Amino acid sequence: MMAPMPLARVFTLIEPGPVVLVTTHDGKRHNVMTISWTMVTDFTPTLAITTGPWNHSYAALRKSRECVIAVPTVDLLDQVVGIGTCTGADTDKFERFGLTPLPGSCVGAPLIKECLANIECRVVDIVRRHNIVVLEGLAAHLDRARRERRTLHAVGDGHFVVDGPRLSRRAKMRAKLPPDV
Amino acid sequence: MMAPMPLARVFTLIEPGPVVLVTTHDGKRHNVMTISWTMVTDFTPTLAITTGPWNHSYAALRKSRECVIAVPTVDLLDQVVGIGTCTGADTDKFERFGLTPLPGSCVGAPLIKECLANIECRVVDIVRRHNIVVLEGLAAHLDRARRERRTLHAVGDGHFVVDGPRLSRRAKMRAKLPPDV
Repeated sequence: MMAPMPLARVFTLIEPGPVVLVTTHDGKRHNVMTISWTMVTDFTPTLAITTGPWNHSYAALRKSRECVIAVPTVDLLDQVVGIGTCTGADTDKFERFGLTPLPGSCVGAPLIKECLANIECRVVDIVRRHNIVVLEGLAAHLDRARRERRTLHAVGDGHFVVDGPRLSRRAKMRAKLPPDV
Repeated sequence: MMAPMPLARVFTLIEPGPVVLVTTHDGKRHNVMTISWTMVTDFTPTLAITTGPWNHSYAALRKSRECVIAVPTVDLLDQVVGIGTCTGADTDKFERFGLTPLPGSCVGAPLIKECLANIECRVVDIVRRHNIVVLEGLAAHLDRARRERRTLHAVGDGHFVVDGPRLSRRAKMRAKLPPDV
């Protein structure tokens, strides 16, 4: 079940570089796309994604100025690949891939129940010359009961790297960490 | 030993979201910083990084309009953390962390011999309002003999996730992959 997650920790979902799902709502329908080109741009949090007219979702993103960034885990790999290789122009991807849309608290785009985490975002800016969309996280939700928490990293050549061992250097880094993290 | 890597494959180094080292040369000295906020923006390749005046390297990056993105592996974790928690303002980080600078073929910033890969880049644009620097990869080098190839993903809270298992969905994705990848 999705539970609220503090905004101050949201950048830690994206900083490790997982492939994500981005949902939109165009006023009539939900849609979802797979995006691997993402970046944290500050701790508030703001996030950047690279997208453009070649993605069917882009029109809804521009029009609504809202989206949800959902973080899938390794058990969802075939949905991630399926979503990335068909188009919302002719497919209801939530239905086709068995995803459950949940209402967000701030935006019209849906959360995805099956994902580990969901970040409700508003579009802050679109840097057209680089196809960069800058987003601000407004609210976030984490499924704390989820057992599988390993995310996926797209290589871009058809391979995906699954999260492996986790190492701590917190003691060494303490002075440099943002507050509340 | 660093061997040339085709530019068409360079985005596959950054798309999985590894923490990277960014080297610069300010006309007198080499410097290097740890950066986790990176994103591919197209296949040519262009890459975006988030940085600004709070990083000592930023002045050299702006002035020289060049840098090298080096990809470290898990055996370099303590160097990655050390580089990220001191400043080039008062430290020769290559010397302190035992890194070997190698000359690049296109830029004045050094390659790092100990890393898995190095991407020589020029600055295409600085999007000041978001602290986003857009880079174009000009040449790339891969250490094909290196045994340890697992990269690190910074979580941002002092933890790092090491690359785990690699899964292929190439057959399903073939139609969507860029040429030469």
